[in-house]
Amino acid sequence: MDGIQKELLEQVAGLHEIPRGAYNIRANGKGIARSTTANIDIIPKEDKPGIDIRIKANTKNEAVHIPVLLTESGINDAVYNDFFIGENADVTIIAGCGIHNGGDAKSQHDGVHRFFVGKNAKVRYVEKHYGSGDGKGGRIMNPTTIVNVDEGGYVEMELAQIKGIDSTDRNTESTLQKGATLIVKEKLMTHGTQYAKTNFLVNLDGEDSSANVVSRSVAKEQSKQLFISKIVGNNKCAGHTECDAIIMDDASVSAVPELTANCVDASLIHEAAIGKIAGEQLMKLMTLGLTESEAESKIVEGFLK
Amino acid sequence: MDGIQKELLEQVAGLHEIPRGAYNIRANGKGIARSTTANIDIIPKEDKPGIDIRIKANTKNEAVHIPVLLTESGINDAVYNDFFIGENADVTIIAGCGIHNGGDAKSQHDGVHRFFVGKNAKVRYVEKHYGSGDGKGGRIMNPTTIVNVDEGGYVEMELAQIKGIDSTDRNTESTLQKGATLIVKEKLMTHGTQYAKTNFLVNLDGEDSSANVVSRSVAKEQSKQLFISKIVGNNKCAGHTECDAIIMDDASVSAVPELTANCVDASLIHEAAIGKIAGEQLMKLMTLGLTESEAESKIVEGFLK
Repeated sequence: MDGIQKELLEQVAGLHEIPRGAYNIRANGKGIARSTTANIDIIPKEDKPGIDIRIKANTKNEAVHIPVLLTESGINDAVYNDFFIGENADVTIIAGCGIHNGGDAKSQHDGVHRFFVGKNAKVRYVEKHYGSGDGKGGRIMNPTTIVNVDEGGYVEMELAQIKGIDSTDRNTESTLQKGATLIVKEKLMTHGTQYAKTNFLVNLDGEDSSANVVSRSVAKEQSKQLFISKIVGNNKCAGHTECDAIIMDDASVSAVPELTANCVDASLIHEAAIGKIAGEQLMKLMTLGLTESEAESKIVEGFLK
Repeated sequence: MDGIQKELLEQVAGLHEIPRGAYNIRANGKGIARSTTANIDIIPKEDKPGIDIRIKANTKNEAVHIPVLLTESGINDAVYNDFFIGENADVTIIAGCGIHNGGDAKSQHDGVHRFFVGKNAKVRYVEKHYGSGDGKGGRIMNPTTIVNVDEGGYVEMELAQIKGIDSTDRNTESTLQKGATLIVKEKLMTHGTQYAKTNFLVNLDGEDSSANVVSRSVAKEQSKQLFISKIVGNNKCAGHTECDAIIMDDASVSAVPELTANCVDASLIHEAAIGKIAGEQLMKLMTLGLTESEAESKIVEGFLK
């Protein structure tokens, strides 16, 4: 790996070196390093680009890193990864993607991730998207995530796109069986003329299933954001979705949550708020000696933490 | 007017007799009574069914009643009413519609109301929809309401459809200029296999314009409801939309609010909650001697009050 790849790896996966445990590192459309453990197998797909990640039942406290790095300009990388998580497993999956585009051609990564989470399994999924490089070529990421959670399963997703992605169309679709839980925390920041669309669909099919989808975003300069979140209650269930956005400069933000209750025992709530940074907050920090732009940065940082 | 028409008139307009002041009563597709005052003129349209209601500037504390009654089965009545409200006027407009269908043919009323609210004028608009009759013919109402509020204008809308309408597709679109205010309070109840769709669009175009759109609904038995509410902030403005629904039996409810901020000084909020009547509330009333169904009625009544 060269310096740029190492920098991207740190940004998207918090890694300074090759990780311990299971991993698969993909760079510029090709797998460049792979490691499996006794409990976690990684098998390249034969019919299309991508891997199957098979985690044995009862696997505890293990992690899988599957970062994707794009450093060549003009690359168009699509990848299909399937995760099979055995019953009672308790694992962390870290799946960031970084694009460095120093050229004038568009670089694009479309990742389709499907999760099959076994009974009573617990998964923490972390996905960071990051872009860098001063080329004129666009940095584009369109992730699709399909999550099936079996009885009693628990999935927590931390999704972040803080910097450098020019256009993103994010789709996450999940179906929860009896007693299953989904927690989503999304953080988005756009600047320049960036565009970000994010679309969640949660089907609460099982009795006592529950979902909490929370998105926080900041839109700066001329950027545009569209947030869609649908929760469908088909059984006795609880769903909550929330979208809070800070709007700055000439940006625009739309929030379109959708609740559908098809069962009398479905309890669904959503909230959203879009507004600029409160004047009093800015004033307070400026009284403490910060410039206006330092104060803004501080508030945005706290909001997205 | 016969007994059924008098009963409808009481339900939709709270009237026991012909009202004082300005009014236009329409029954089965024809105007049957009209009265104007020195400040409020009512002129039948020449190119299509409907009336122009012209309210002079500075008119204070006057009311206009324009109820519509359908008592023949199989009638299909479309009407176009335009309201021109002069500067600084302060008036109440009561525009209910009642359908009594005792036959097997469909009875339908499509009313298109356009409001041109002058500078600093204040309008209270009350619209009640009600259906009765034990015929198999459907009772259908599709109201379209377009509201233009000039600088400093204030419009408060109370929209209610509590009983007897089999299908409704309600569209309300409003545009607010500088300092204008819109308050909407909607109450809906559906039962049987009824369907209700309600769609609000509020364009906050003017500086310091504001809107508050609140809908409360109860869906019983096999009925279905869809609530859509879009607030678009194009200037320094404040918008709030809220939808609270009680779901009962096998009903289903969808809520789809949409906030779009196109200006950094737009402050927009929405909230929604769908759920059944809380068990504790029922228990409390039953401890006081009410049956379960009496307790439910009491809670629904309080919720829609």
